[in-house]
Amino acid sequence: MSKLIFGIDVGGTTVKCGLFDYNGELLESFEIPTRTEDHGRNILPDIAQAIRNKLAEKGASVADLLGVGIGVPGPVVRESFVPRCVNLGWGGTDVAGDLSSLLDGTRVVVANDANAAAMGEYIKGGGKGYNSMMLFTLGTGVGGGIILDGKPLAGAHGTGGEIGHITVNPQETVKCVCGRRGCMEQYASATGLIRVTRLLLEEEDTPSLLRGEDVKLSARTIFDAAEQGDEIADRAIDRMCDALAQAMGTIASTIDPEAFCIGGGVARAGEILIDRIKKHYPKYTFGDPNAIEFVFAKLGNDAGMVGAANLILRDS
Amino acid sequence: MSKLIFGIDVGGTTVKCGLFDYNGELLESFEIPTRTEDHGRNILPDIAQAIRNKLAEKGASVADLLGVGIGVPGPVVRESFVPRCVNLGWGGTDVAGDLSSLLDGTRVVVANDANAAAMGEYIKGGGKGYNSMMLFTLGTGVGGGIILDGKPLAGAHGTGGEIGHITVNPQETVKCVCGRRGCMEQYASATGLIRVTRLLLEEEDTPSLLRGEDVKLSARTIFDAAEQGDEIADRAIDRMCDALAQAMGTIASTIDPEAFCIGGGVARAGEILIDRIKKHYPKYTFGDPNAIEFVFAKLGNDAGMVGAANLILRDS
Repeated sequence: MSKLIFGIDVGGTTVKCGLFDYNGELLESFEIPTRTEDHGRNILPDIAQAIRNKLAEKGASVADLLGVGIGVPGPVVRESFVPRCVNLGWGGTDVAGDLSSLLDGTRVVVANDANAAAMGEYIKGGGKGYNSMMLFTLGTGVGGGIILDGKPLAGAHGTGGEIGHITVNPQETVKCVCGRRGCMEQYASATGLIRVTRLLLEEEDTPSLLRGEDVKLSARTIFDAAEQGDEIADRAIDRMCDALAQAMGTIASTIDPEAFCIGGGVARAGEILIDRIKKHYPKYTFGDPNAIEFVFAKLGNDAGMVGAANLILRDS
Repeated sequence: MSKLIFGIDVGGTTVKCGLFDYNGELLESFEIPTRTEDHGRNILPDIAQAIRNKLAEKGASVADLLGVGIGVPGPVVRESFVPRCVNLGWGGTDVAGDLSSLLDGTRVVVANDANAAAMGEYIKGGGKGYNSMMLFTLGTGVGGGIILDGKPLAGAHGTGGEIGHITVNPQETVKCVCGRRGCMEQYASATGLIRVTRLLLEEEDTPSLLRGEDVKLSARTIFDAAEQGDEIADRAIDRMCDALAQAMGTIASTIDPEAFCIGGGVARAGEILIDRIKKHYPKYTFGDPNAIEFVFAKLGNDAGMVGAANLILRDS
């Protein structure tokens, strides 16, 4: 039997598990719950058991594994150790060592979940074909993962690519959830978009589809309103994309990637996002603004699983 | 005879040439003029001739070379090709190929000069002992070079680490020399420091040692005035360090290095620089502000030459 690989994406409520063949093709995927109680002590044993069960179902065993790649929602150093992971209840955890022990010494490689997702998009998604790229995930917050020459840029403290709280507006007077002011997330996440929209609705009398007690403000309703020509929605989206363009310009001056890949729930808004980012981007870049490409992520929620599996394939 | 290496740092007026032994020790250094006339067509032949002359003087020949590392003041792709280099008069130039041909096929590795300087500080200077670091050079402008795991981050278009024009103040109304507004250089270079000081002197009546027709404003006179308690000088320096801290916070969120290394002429101001940067840095970083170290560069003008030589040694 040729070797098998598992790509695991650990979230705060579920663990996505993918069984891959030696060519990196996803054979099957399933989920198990993430048991965060007791400081998350069950999470790795649950994953090991799920892997063993799936292998048994296939008539295979741990000996048939080439390795297990795993993405976790926290910093990761040396592709193995997690100093802390608030969402999972973990303190310092030797994820690679512990999971490997539970799987008879199988090779385990660990990455931050955003970096794993970036790796997935780089190998099989929107970033395919580029040598270096950065994934921006626009959801409740703004996440990021950088791939340079086929490797995630994990960083010295495991926080490479954590760009949600970079300062884009030092003059901001409203505090971010992090306690500082002017973070990109205050404008460019779903939460930030809603915040800016609400501010505009309060401060101005401009008529808007988004006024009224029965309107539920969300990234979706705001983008829908913009499509129908709503001025307030349009301006909030413009502010969002201006903040993204500013962050991207700074990041491009720093790491000079070939492409920015845009994913996360908010990316479902489609072309308007990239159009608006491109409109603002030349204000914030020293180099040729056309030197970089803007693309959409393609793998959705599978990105982390696919990327995790490729942490194993990459070195094989 | 054991192998020899040349580390070359090409500037707009002089070329610094260093002869190194196989252990990376500098045996001797000298300079030749940079002949930028005729689109800089003489620069590489002049360097090749200088190398041959020095080798002959030592009773050695091109056959004794392990390789030549060369830093140039422009973007460099694939450690060989320079798409353009305004300061030297070059259009697209295959620096590695051309210089290698002039030296009987000797191995030539090319880097951007700021990246070469960062490599030098990383190997033998202020960045020694760190696995990843970024050099900030504070001079007429602000330059930068990033080293990750022992390699310069050159970038897809050769502009990695070119952080002088990242936007730190989107509300700025004054134009930068680059045509955009709010670039770090408008506050944090020697030129920027003088600009901010001049603005404060014009806008306010605060008494200052820097007033008067016989006062020549320079980074040095401004730092000297601050040391004597001058309020205007102090505030201009504070603005400078605030801009640097903001840029560093953003860069730390992106590449998460172990250390920032500060060099360039302005770094001669000493501890006040790092003290002030540290004062502002926590406003701009999401992670632990104490996770990163701030150190001074040590090699001065030799950094580029030392780093260039180490582009050869690194792979040997």
